[in-house]
Amino acid sequence: MKLRIFKDIEDRRASRTNRFPRSHRLEPTGFVHAFRSDLPSACTLEPGDTIEATTQDASNGKVRSTDDLPGKVAQRPWVNPMTGPIIINDAEPGDALIVETLSIEPLEERGFSWIREDFGALVATTSTALLNAPLPEAVWPYKIRGGKVIFRSRMNDREIILPYRPFLGTIGCATPEEAPHSLIPGRHGGNMDAVDNGVGSFLILPILVPGAYLYFGDAHAVQGDGELCGVAVEISARVRLQIDLIKGRTVRWPMIESADAVMAVGSARPLEDAYRIACKEIVLWLQEEYGFDLLDAYQLASQTLTCRIGNVVDPFYSVVARFPKVFLY
Amino acid sequence: MKLRIFKDIEDRRASRTNRFPRSHRLEPTGFVHAFRSDLPSACTLEPGDTIEATTQDASNGKVRSTDDLPGKVAQRPWVNPMTGPIIINDAEPGDALIVETLSIEPLEERGFSWIREDFGALVATTSTALLNAPLPEAVWPYKIRGGKVIFRSRMNDREIILPYRPFLGTIGCATPEEAPHSLIPGRHGGNMDAVDNGVGSFLILPILVPGAYLYFGDAHAVQGDGELCGVAVEISARVRLQIDLIKGRTVRWPMIESADAVMAVGSARPLEDAYRIACKEIVLWLQEEYGFDLLDAYQLASQTLTCRIGNVVDPFYSVVARFPKVFLY
Amino acid sequence: MKLRIFKDIEDRRASRTNRFPRSHRLEPTGFVHAFRSDLPSACTLEPGDTIEATTQDASNGKVRSTDDLPGKVAQRPWVNPMTGPIIINDAEPGDALIVETLSIEPLEERGFSWIREDFGALVATTSTALLNAPLPEAVWPYKIRGGKVIFRSRMNDREIILPYRPFLGTIGCATPEEAPHSLIPGRHGGNMDAVDNGVGSFLILPILVPGAYLYFGDAHAVQGDGELCGVAVEISARVRLQIDLIKGRTVRWPMIESADAVMAVGSARPLEDAYRIACKEIVLWLQEEYGFDLLDAYQLASQTLTCRIGNVVDPFYSVVARFPKVFLY
Amino acid sequence: MKLRIFKDIEDRRASRTNRFPRSHRLEPTGFVHAFRSDLPSACTLEPGDTIEATTQDASNGKVRSTDDLPGKVAQRPWVNPMTGPIIINDAEPGDALIVETLSIEPLEERGFSWIREDFGALVATTSTALLNAPLPEAVWPYKIRGGKVIFRSRMNDREIILPYRPFLGTIGCATPEEAPHSLIPGRHGGNMDAVDNGVGSFLILPILVPGAYLYFGDAHAVQGDGELCGVAVEISARVRLQIDLIKGRTVRWPMIESADAVMAVGSARPLEDAYRIACKEIVLWLQEEYGFDLLDAYQLASQTLTCRIGNVVDPFYSVVARFPKVFLY
Repeated sequence: MKLRIFKDIEDRRASRTNRFPRSHRLEPTGFVHAFRSDLPSACTLEPGDTIEATTQDASNGKVRSTDDLPGKVAQRPWVNPMTGPIIINDAEPGDALIVETLSIEPLEERGFSWIREDFGALVATTSTALLNAPLPEAVWPYKIRGGKVIFRSRMNDREIILPYRPFLGTIGCATPEEAPHSLIPGRHGGNMDAVDNGVGSFLILPILVPGAYLYFGDAHAVQGDGELCGVAVEISARVRLQIDLIKGRTVRWPMIESADAVMAVGSARPLEDAYRIACKEIVLWLQEEYGFDLLDAYQLASQTLTCRIGNVVDPFYSVVARFPKVFLY
Repeated sequence: MKLRIFKDIEDRRASRTNRFPRSHRLEPTGFVHAFRSDLPSACTLEPGDTIEATTQDASNGKVRSTDDLPGKVAQRPWVNPMTGPIIINDAEPGDALIVETLSIEPLEERGFSWIREDFGALVATTSTALLNAPLPEAVWPYKIRGGKVIFRSRMNDREIILPYRPFLGTIGCATPEEAPHSLIPGRHGGNMDAVDNGVGSFLILPILVPGAYLYFGDAHAVQGDGELCGVAVEISARVRLQIDLIKGRTVRWPMIESADAVMAVGSARPLEDAYRIACKEIVLWLQEEYGFDLLDAYQLASQTLTCRIGNVVDPFYSVVARFPKVFLY
Repeated sequence: MKLRIFKDIEDRRASRTNRFPRSHRLEPTGFVHAFRSDLPSACTLEPGDTIEATTQDASNGKVRSTDDLPGKVAQRPWVNPMTGPIIINDAEPGDALIVETLSIEPLEERGFSWIREDFGALVATTSTALLNAPLPEAVWPYKIRGGKVIFRSRMNDREIILPYRPFLGTIGCATPEEAPHSLIPGRHGGNMDAVDNGVGSFLILPILVPGAYLYFGDAHAVQGDGELCGVAVEISARVRLQIDLIKGRTVRWPMIESADAVMAVGSARPLEDAYRIACKEIVLWLQEEYGFDLLDAYQLASQTLTCRIGNVVDPFYSVVARFPKVFLY
Repeated sequence: MKLRIFKDIEDRRASRTNRFPRSHRLEPTGFVHAFRSDLPSACTLEPGDTIEATTQDASNGKVRSTDDLPGKVAQRPWVNPMTGPIIINDAEPGDALIVETLSIEPLEERGFSWIREDFGALVATTSTALLNAPLPEAVWPYKIRGGKVIFRSRMNDREIILPYRPFLGTIGCATPEEAPHSLIPGRHGGNMDAVDNGVGSFLILPILVPGAYLYFGDAHAVQGDGELCGVAVEISARVRLQIDLIKGRTVRWPMIESADAVMAVGSARPLEDAYRIACKEIVLWLQEEYGFDLLDAYQLASQTLTCRIGNVVDPFYSVVARFPKVFLY
């Protein structure tokens, strides 16, 4: 697939000068909970290289059965562990990082989802702080087999077959001075929980510190829009990614290109601000790359964009605005 | 299509007792701007009847060329005119109304979209009241022909072909005591701008006053998610609807059933509250209709719902949560 | 007190031409739940006249003891009854209405407050729709005597003495075309629950239909900022108001002038939009009345405004931005 | 002043065992932009000690005249520098830190305020991402002398005298794993911009890492509620603080005690969530410290709390809920 997000993107791809792209393998011995720029490299890549790495599930592997209530076994801030940092040679602020998700395989033939007392879009939380009594915590094991993810009712063992549609819930680059927690999405990527960033998609991230310092984890076997209860079908996974750089050109917020669409990811609260960011980035992209004036781009986006809601549960909510490429090519 | 939103819906449909459903035709002589329960009937139907009616576009027909700047020719509250009220015999509070959209045809082979100074998701508005200077107002004419809607750039006449995917932006029933403006969406329906309510879909509305007092208008030839600039491709239209009642059973918020999904529409600000309402209604529906306990329903919805954003511009924002029927049948 | 909200306000006051201001008395025989412009006048005034009227409490007089759980006895939309409409001769769109609150006396030496299942800032509501179980409903009677309002704990009869600081929670003018419910605040005034609009304050409202059609009610003996649980100490009251017009000059949103401050009231969701509206109106007022340029007005307001939160429970939230007059005179 | 926020607070104050409290002096050689727990101590204290330290203004000292437009001279993330970390011996997670502000003196007889292109409550920002053109950037110098802060209009040199009411806009403790930017307020304190935390007030913060790692800066000579334009009258200052510990008892969110009130500070978006957090903490405090049951505490708070808005501009907004001590003692 030839990327079209920027007109000159193929000229700017740093991997063109890497004649011998390599495959790297990373079995991390520890996991990280913040996008830090001061850790030793877990793996160092050249543009064009691929990496195969394992990721730990969002509970740090602590939820293993229906008895492992998350409020007890997986307390913040020690949740949502990430693999990394991956350092990319020659990456500099002003460049963009391209991460193609080649594959995501569960390490075991199962995953877990759960409900936490104070987390999720349909319950009172630490932010939406109310006096109502919490829901009880609960855990759902899911079998994952043959491209299927099987929901089983806690009450009557009824089974419902869902599709296996994996993606990395959390992926992003380090930021200077601060170190945002892995639960937080933003300009740097992070915990976007964007279903659209699945296998075969290209994620484009702004590079904010030399070397990029890429981290990722929080693999999901399947997830509904908004990650309603705050938890997808969480898996530990073997992940293969191909990494590249765009030299001398960057994005303001994460963008995604798939076979049929160019997308932007906005993260903010309230949810309308996440929508605004994502849509504005597509409007500016239409202006910058296709010569539409601002008003024409705004009008065209108004009639063509579709949007999926990434999450309505994390410290900032995420919305993905999608422009179908068919309208331009 | 056999409706499945409620297990006993076919038993409850009032049209079963209407042996001679009729077709009605309505050419309104005036339009209404609020969901009022004190106006004389524009047309009175029995359950099972169909109605063919014309609707006026959202500008009241005032935007007819690029010179008709909306801030001058179409001032609030005299915008978003509705056809109605349609009174449905035997409709009572506690029942639900079913409206199937049979067809929507533009009255002319063209529509209009525009930008208003103080309206839209990417500009300062009367609510998000800021000091920035407004964007200039502008109008875009669209040709509509052969199932296509043609965007033409104001700057360079470049054309882009969009699909004709019509729906009624505004449709709802009267509420007691008050009379909400046609611009406002809520439990009664109203200005939801829900793309999912297209031709072939069934909209289920709560009946709040005897006779239902149905109003509709604001036909859109095509619209992106969220109605980004506040205005879709607005058309005056000839609309055919089939009307039915569910006796003795109702919905709390508008719901939609299509060939492949059951949906709920939430309207509120901020946008996350619209998302919460829509998702909660689907969770409760799984509980009430399919015997899932609350936690199972919450978990299942979390991994399966997709959501489209209706509007991020009206007095309340709208989100549609969609549960794919394939998971249940 | 000489009003200073507009430089030429004393010249514009319509009461100057009313040589014989009269006192009117109104004992309403029924109450109204929406700001309607199509009802017969309950009382017609000349500018400068005073009116003494009774208002019914927000429960419609239905909560009379701790057994009267509000969810049973006072169901929406039949809550928050208003006295009116008061028609003001010569009032026209483009003018402003001035309402001075002269006195508010409770009809009985007691008031009530309560908790509703789905209403209040610290519980899940119909908008912030969650799955948590509701709080139980409860009623608190308060004795009101000698300028004091006495809270008594339900659990142990402990008493705490609060000050009697009455104001009208709901007051506003009719709007054209639509008829907003008495629970809704907005440009027209309405259910602002603004503590700052107490006895001795002047409320300035935009006139939107000929005759103004003023309504009021929802008297509160005392209330904290934001009306946290959704209910103040609610009283039926005898209210005295003096009514005047500003001819040929109006306000965009409700404003208040007291002995020491000029204020603007914004109503919207989310709460930051209510704050934005209120603050913007003060910035524009500094610009229009005092010759500051926009940036200077914005800067000066940033260092001087204080804000009280009217309500965080109604369909729109309200914030009052207060500019101390001492900085200008 | 004897603290009353907790019944047994005087027993729990760690300074009781410090027979020889000392005064420390800190002239920092560098400043920090994140609440990090991995930096060497800038100063180490025993409970009961006082510290006198200088803080740099929010622009890092870069705005020194009307020519220093902030978008050019003070770019994020290199803004809002903090002094610290101050390590407190014996401080452990589960304890609380008490910081009394003894005095704040400007280093020079002047301060600055400014408008940034993309920051402030009345302009489009990076979160509320809109297409409107930005306001021009501008700088206002203020003279500070004799307890007065003098606003001077850019346009006509008109002067308005404001009171000198200084406080630290940013103060907080480090959090484990992550390192939030100094611009972010939260449970740890941070950029709350809470006017109520002035000289003579006691700020109580949860301790989240051993040693507490206290940081502070962002001194304001005066500020309106909400920090409307995003910038108060910013000063570099000489600050004196007295530090103490509460052993074995902590707070969930920052609290403040002054001569006449106990307060809680909530930080979140949207603004209603900040209000909810602050009010809920006061409700729980009434329950935990004064034996009210939950409903009584909720009801009492509803009629008595007043609220000031800290900021409506930072990554999370802040609200302070204030319970007047007169009702309890």
